[in-house]
Amino acid sequence: MNEIKLFCPATIANVSCGFDVLGLCLESTGDEMIIRKTSQKGVRISKITGQELPLEAQKNVAGVAVLAMLNEIESDFGFEIEIIKKIKPGSGIGSSAASAAGAVYGVNLLLDKPFTKNQLVAFAMQGEELASGAPHADNVAPALLGGFTLVKGYEPLEVLKLNTPKELFATVIHPQIEVKTADARSVIKQNIPLKKAIKQWGNLAGLVSALYTEDYDLISRCLHDEIVEPMRSPLIPGFHKVKEAAKEAGALGSGISGSGPSIFALSKGGETAKKAAKAMAEVYKDFGVDYDIHVSKINTKGVRLL
Amino acid sequence: MNEIKLFCPATIANVSCGFDVLGLCLESTGDEMIIRKTSQKGVRISKITGQELPLEAQKNVAGVAVLAMLNEIESDFGFEIEIIKKIKPGSGIGSSAASAAGAVYGVNLLLDKPFTKNQLVAFAMQGEELASGAPHADNVAPALLGGFTLVKGYEPLEVLKLNTPKELFATVIHPQIEVKTADARSVIKQNIPLKKAIKQWGNLAGLVSALYTEDYDLISRCLHDEIVEPMRSPLIPGFHKVKEAAKEAGALGSGISGSGPSIFALSKGGETAKKAAKAMAEVYKDFGVDYDIHVSKINTKGVRLL
Repeated sequence: MNEIKLFCPATIANVSCGFDVLGLCLESTGDEMIIRKTSQKGVRISKITGQELPLEAQKNVAGVAVLAMLNEIESDFGFEIEIIKKIKPGSGIGSSAASAAGAVYGVNLLLDKPFTKNQLVAFAMQGEELASGAPHADNVAPALLGGFTLVKGYEPLEVLKLNTPKELFATVIHPQIEVKTADARSVIKQNIPLKKAIKQWGNLAGLVSALYTEDYDLISRCLHDEIVEPMRSPLIPGFHKVKEAAKEAGALGSGISGSGPSIFALSKGGETAKKAAKAMAEVYKDFGVDYDIHVSKINTKGVRLL
Repeated sequence: MNEIKLFCPATIANVSCGFDVLGLCLESTGDEMIIRKTSQKGVRISKITGQELPLEAQKNVAGVAVLAMLNEIESDFGFEIEIIKKIKPGSGIGSSAASAAGAVYGVNLLLDKPFTKNQLVAFAMQGEELASGAPHADNVAPALLGGFTLVKGYEPLEVLKLNTPKELFATVIHPQIEVKTADARSVIKQNIPLKKAIKQWGNLAGLVSALYTEDYDLISRCLHDEIVEPMRSPLIPGFHKVKEAAKEAGALGSGISGSGPSIFALSKGGETAKKAAKAMAEVYKDFGVDYDIHVSKINTKGVRLL
C-alpha cells in the first residue's frame, strides 16, 4: 500500500450538555485526503483544493499532527498529503479536526498501525493547537473513533467511545456569518455557579445513560446547556428561532455546534432530521442570510478509506 | 394485606464525581419498618426503637413523607408505623432517607400501588426537607429504586435507574465523629472554576458509561471528586489516610459518603471489599476513634418486603 484515499468526517463538539467533553461524528459531510509514501522522509503538503490554506507542513494542521507522530517513530520513508477541503474553516463542525485526524489516521495506516486510535488522538490534538491555540480533543476524538465520544480527561488523555443509538440523525446548519474564535472564547466565564454545574452534570449523565439505553425521549430531555449556550448564543443571530423551528419540526433538541456559528439538531430518524433541516433553513431564508445545511446519520466508524 | 414488614436500606449519595445527582443502594445495612392499616385515618408513628426520634408524625421524616402522599389521595383507612432504627442519624448513609423511602413505599403497597416509584421519590423528599432543610433526592432515589440512581433534574423531578455492574461491592466506614450538617454545607463554595466542572463532568460521564459497560478499571479512573471532596474532607480526620488504605487494599476508589463523616469505597468483588474494610478500619484503630464498618453488595431492588 503506497497511496490511500480517505474520507475525513466533520464532527459536532459539545453536543449541548457536554461542553469540552462530548462529540459526535457525521457521515454526510467531510473532506477527502490522499496520502502517498515518498522516498523523501518527513511530511509534505503537496496540494490543497477547496480552501486557501498554508502548504508549509509546520503551518498546516495536518502537517503538524503528522510531524508530532513522526517524532515518536522511526520511518524509512516520508509522506505527501493532498487535501480536498470541503468543510469550511470556522464553520464550527471540526474543519481543522478533520484534516488533523485524517492525516494521522492515514499515516498510521501506511506505517502498518504502530499507534492505537487513542494515541492518534494525542497527535491530532497538536493540529488543533495550531488551529485554535488549545490542544483540545472534542472534535478529533469523534473524527478518529466515530460515533459519540467522551473526552474523559486530559491528565492523562483518555477518550471513550460511547454507544450510538441506531436511529439517531443530525442536522447541521451553517449560517454564513463570522463568529471570531476570540469572541466565542472571551464570552466564556471562568467561574460558574455550582447550581448550574449540577444541572449540567445531571443532563450530561442522563444523556450518556440515554445513549446506552437508546432512549430517544430521554436524549431529548437531556439536550440542554445551562452553561455555555447562554453565553455564546448572542453571537449567533437567529439562534433561538432556529432552535424553536427544529423543536417544532420534531427534533429531539438542538444547540451550538462547537463554538458556532453552526447549529446542530438531533432527531430520531432521517425523515424528522430532514423536516428539521427545512424548518431551520426557513429561519435564515427569512433573515436573508446564506447557509449550508447537512442532514447526516451518525458516522460510527470515523475516518475511513475510500 | 393489613400489616407489612420492610427492609429500608442505607444509601451512599454523591459517589465522588456525582455531587447532588448520583446515589447507590446498600444491601447489608438498613432499618426495619412495620406498617399497619388502622381504621383511624391519617398516620401515626407508634414506636421507634434504636434511636431517640420524634413520634409526632409532623416532626418525623417518615410521618411527613406519608402525610405528603396522603394529601394526594383519598383513603378510607390510616396507617401506624413502627420503626426499628439501625442506621445512625448523621452518619452520612441516608438514615432519614431510609425512613422516608420505607414509609412511602410501604403505604403505597397497602394502598394497592396508586403511585409510581418516581412519584414516591417526590413524597420521600418531603421527609428529607424536614431532616436537612432541603428536599433532595440523592438518597431517597436509590433507597426506593435500588442500584445506582441519577437525579437527572428537579424541574421537573426526574430520577433514573442506571445499570449496576454485577461484581461491585461497597465498603462504608462510619467514624464516630460529629460533622455538623451546617458545617458540611457552609464549606461548599457557590461558585466553582469552569475548568474543575469540566473535569468533574468528564469523570461523571465516564462513570455512567463504565456502569453500562461494566468496566471496573474505568470506574476506578472516574471515582474522583474535583469539587466537593477538597472542601469537605478537612472536616473528616483521617480521610486521606483512609482513602490511601482503601486504594492499597485494592479498592477501585473511595470518597465521602453523602456529607460524611462516613467514607465509602467501591471494589470489584466481596473479597477485595473486605480487605478494604480491614485496611480502612486500621486507620481509625490507630487514631483511637470508634467506628462502624459495613461491607455490602449493591442492592439493586431498594426497599423491600421482609
